[in-house]
Amino acid sequence: MKKALFITITLLAIFACKNNAETNSDATVQSESETRYPSDVIPFMDEWKILLGDGTHTDTLVNYEKKDFFYVENDNKTDWVVYKAPNSGVTSRTSSNTRTELGQKANWIPETGGKLTGTLKVEHVSTSGDASVPSSYSVVIGQIHSDEGHENEPLKIFYKKFPGHTKGSVFWNYEINTKGDNSGRWDFSTAVWGYDFSVVGTSPTIYPDEPKDGIELGEEFSYEVNVYKGIMYLTFISEGHETIKFTKSLLKSDFSKKSDTPQQVVTIYASKGRDGIERENAYAGEIQYFKQGAYNQANGNTTRSDTYDGDIAKQYANGSYAEVWFKEASVGSGTEPQN
Amino acid sequence: MKKALFITITLLAIFACKNNAETNSDATVQSESETRYPSDVIPFMDEWKILLGDGTHTDTLVNYEKKDFFYVENDNKTDWVVYKAPNSGVTSRTSSNTRTELGQKANWIPETGGKLTGTLKVEHVSTSGDASVPSSYSVVIGQIHSDEGHENEPLKIFYKKFPGHTKGSVFWNYEINTKGDNSGRWDFSTAVWGYDFSVVGTSPTIYPDEPKDGIELGEEFSYEVNVYKGIMYLTFISEGHETIKFTKSLLKSDFSKKSDTPQQVVTIYASKGRDGIERENAYAGEIQYFKQGAYNQANGNTTRSDTYDGDIAKQYANGSYAEVWFKEASVGSGTEPQN
Repeated sequence: MKKALFITITLLAIFACKNNAETNSDATVQSESETRYPSDVIPFMDEWKILLGDGTHTDTLVNYEKKDFFYVENDNKTDWVVYKAPNSGVTSRTSSNTRTELGQKANWIPETGGKLTGTLKVEHVSTSGDASVPSSYSVVIGQIHSDEGHENEPLKIFYKKFPGHTKGSVFWNYEINTKGDNSGRWDFSTAVWGYDFSVVGTSPTIYPDEPKDGIELGEEFSYEVNVYKGIMYLTFISEGHETIKFTKSLLKSDFSKKSDTPQQVVTIYASKGRDGIERENAYAGEIQYFKQGAYNQANGNTTRSDTYDGDIAKQYANGSYAEVWFKEASVGSGTEPQN
Repeated sequence: MKKALFITITLLAIFACKNNAETNSDATVQSESETRYPSDVIPFMDEWKILLGDGTHTDTLVNYEKKDFFYVENDNKTDWVVYKAPNSGVTSRTSSNTRTELGQKANWIPETGGKLTGTLKVEHVSTSGDASVPSSYSVVIGQIHSDEGHENEPLKIFYKKFPGHTKGSVFWNYEINTKGDNSGRWDFSTAVWGYDFSVVGTSPTIYPDEPKDGIELGEEFSYEVNVYKGIMYLTFISEGHETIKFTKSLLKSDFSKKSDTPQQVVTIYASKGRDGIERENAYAGEIQYFKQGAYNQANGNTTRSDTYDGDIAKQYANGSYAEVWFKEASVGSGTEPQN
């Protein structure tokens, strides 16, 4: 009897320990499998709405995710917010390109200013396209967008990588706020690392040389767009690369006369009849907002990229998509530049 | 020898304990007496600059305080940020009134909007003044201020209490964006609780009746100023009082014809020759910023308040000051109104 009691107590003790252990283990597993939302990684999500590559749009981004488009990935070191968009999906009113991209709820004018920052790596761009078309193989990772008038874009920041290259390019485009009819609009492109928008292949299948100082897929870099009293200050930083800064007025055009048209623009746009000039005061007084994410520039028409009849799973399986990971970002007021 | 060693070790142990105890105790005392800065109480201070009643101004308000003007008080329950300003001090470029008041660093236009909130209690207003002058015995606790053109004020929120009264008034003034010469400018005042700006004494020493639904010194209330797509939405809340809301367009004037001039304005301003009209589009497209704190409306000239030759200690000792306590506040983007 005494022995039986001893055994019972021992067994109870063992089960108690086992239960405890299981409880702890369960708790750990549960905590590890809890959904991490993009808003847990970058807490500014209440400042934005979003349009996803499948046409989903929402204004409430806190604790929101959507598989295959907008979600969190961990690369064994860091949580990242993933923005992913196929070459062919559901597009916005003003574009034929597919995006998974934030749109700022607040808006502002150049005179009152605003600031957008992001630290990111591009994981993928479309591997199919027309090498002679500037927007092939590229994704826009940040924008300033007008909300009135022509609804043009004072800023688009691009990442682009030709198929077969290890290194790609980061560049930014300024779209003129066209004087009169907007069918004459064009972008002027400036290289940050690698090439600008205008460096293209001599035929749809011939690529330029790989850029020497480019950025690889998976390589981190960051940008800051600071608009202060009508001047846009751009800063680009990446470890192992030169830090690059630009300044451009949004109040006074550099392109208000025909003779101001850059050669780059003549080369790209002349054949399309897009030869406008800009209003003298550029974007002065015009309402703007920021965008950030993956605005895929590949599509089935202009860039002749593969789209698999819009089948998203097939596009993802065959490289017909853009994917951008952000680990840090902020949006807010413009600030007086420090130098 | 063995014994001596034992004693030594024991003494060392005792000292070690004593030192530990003292260290802990010191740490506690130091922590209790550590300065609590306004930025510890209301964390938005990096969004503002400040002008104090002694002329001090700074753009870096994190971990900043200034005795007698801008500091933290605890009323045994809550930490509050105190804004205090004498009747006579050093004033800003555009005003003859003394203030200890935040000025928003960021700016905006009515079309892009902005939002300011505050929860406060007024602890003191000047006890001397001219009862027949509307701005006597009052302090402005929040503003929208233009940063261009006439630099007029689409909004000033006032607290005012006549001497001897227990209850004071909360009202808000809209200043017209004067068409042409700004010497014709005037404010139109609307009561929230108690009287509006235009209810004055029949002589410098005769006061109107105490307002029945007024707010006492030390009584908490809160305001929200939400400018969204050019419309200003005001909400005032105080426990035990009716919640009051207002809506006013900043894009389309209510006062663009002589016949629009309110009787209140004729009564107050006719004798001063201030009989302007407003531009049709009011404050459309004009750069604005918020202000918050204590903008003392008492002075030695218009309101004939005591100023003791500008001696601040004497003014504070004799009721010639305004003092406002805020416990919560926020500033940011305008939001779509919910009702």
